[in-house]
Amino acid sequence: MKIGILGTGDVGRTLGSKLVETGNTVMLGSRKPDNEQGLAFAAAHKGKAEAGTMAETAAFGEVIFNCTPGTVSLEALTLAGEKNLNGKILIDVANPLDFSKGMPPTLSVSNTTSLGEEIQNKYPKVRVVKAFNTIWNGLMVNPALVNGGDHDIFICGNDKQAKEKVREIIHSFGWMDKNIVDLGDISAARGTEMYLPLWLRIMGTAGNGSFNIKIVK
Amino acid sequence: MKIGILGTGDVGRTLGSKLVETGNTVMLGSRKPDNEQGLAFAAAHKGKAEAGTMAETAAFGEVIFNCTPGTVSLEALTLAGEKNLNGKILIDVANPLDFSKGMPPTLSVSNTTSLGEEIQNKYPKVRVVKAFNTIWNGLMVNPALVNGGDHDIFICGNDKQAKEKVREIIHSFGWMDKNIVDLGDISAARGTEMYLPLWLRIMGTAGNGSFNIKIVK
Repeated sequence: MKIGILGTGDVGRTLGSKLVETGNTVMLGSRKPDNEQGLAFAAAHKGKAEAGTMAETAAFGEVIFNCTPGTVSLEALTLAGEKNLNGKILIDVANPLDFSKGMPPTLSVSNTTSLGEEIQNKYPKVRVVKAFNTIWNGLMVNPALVNGGDHDIFICGNDKQAKEKVREIIHSFGWMDKNIVDLGDISAARGTEMYLPLWLRIMGTAGNGSFNIKIVK
Repeated sequence: MKIGILGTGDVGRTLGSKLVETGNTVMLGSRKPDNEQGLAFAAAHKGKAEAGTMAETAAFGEVIFNCTPGTVSLEALTLAGEKNLNGKILIDVANPLDFSKGMPPTLSVSNTTSLGEEIQNKYPKVRVVKAFNTIWNGLMVNPALVNGGDHDIFICGNDKQAKEKVREIIHSFGWMDKNIVDLGDISAARGTEMYLPLWLRIMGTAGNGSFNIKIVK
């Protein structure tokens, strides 16, 4: 499948490498077509990856990942272009963490809304699925790193078929189906994004991001 | 030990019963001294429990639990009286969930602050420890209900000795020490309170509150 990844940071490149490894072709998008990390990624996966602008990347992908910082995601999607996004699945990985006032970050949107909902509201024809945003990127693509892979990842969105497709992608990364927890419609993004302050505090005690939560009943 | 519990709802009564069972004497406090739930609780634990006003309860307790609804906790603490609280450990169990605009609830304070911090700021001589607020009350006092008791409970606060005392109380409820996770100072209450929207969505998929999260590394 052709996958467009908006954002050339750690998260975008980690997901991009795994998507190439699992048989997809990937374009990594940034504001500038000569973004160094994008070009290095394309060179490292020659023939299976490219670098482009946000608009080129959105046009290229059958499925799009939003891996831009959450505070600039709406801006990045404007550059990507509504016509390039409409009808497609957009996997929103971003968290609206605002570090501008120092640590700890606050959320630039929360409580009565979420980034996932803001994106869905602004692009009603895009099939937004919030996913991956509660987990350190190293674990996103290698769940077996902790507890034999037995821990949970959340998805939510309004489009059931889109969620099924995202479930398949997550499954292809090594996640067990029982650990992919569908929380319902896109308003559940409020829950997964507002979990970030707790995630950051747990990371503070754990010393690094290589942990996750498992729901026990 | 003499324990004062502010609030006569499910959470207060569940914790109160367990505290009596583990050898403490308990006063359950409410706005009105003739609160029916308070009187019934006192009658059910004759000789080991009493019902009183917020002020009587705060004066009675060597350790105080805040089990009032989070949106009225500051009001309840005003009734309890600063002089009755100063120097004591206040275990803040409340979540500032505002149901006034329907479901899902929003948080009346969040993101840049938390109820735990607001209480600590208003009562600098009270030793506030946020605890229990991420878990359904049935599990608070009976962790073995799920996963053999192997799941996590969070504490935070500025006073280390107070946290050690709270750790002992939690331990006396059946929690294993490895599962009592100290997140640091009281500002971590932001994390545990902002987890509630996710908790509510997980409850929606689980069907009831008898679940918790376990950190896996």
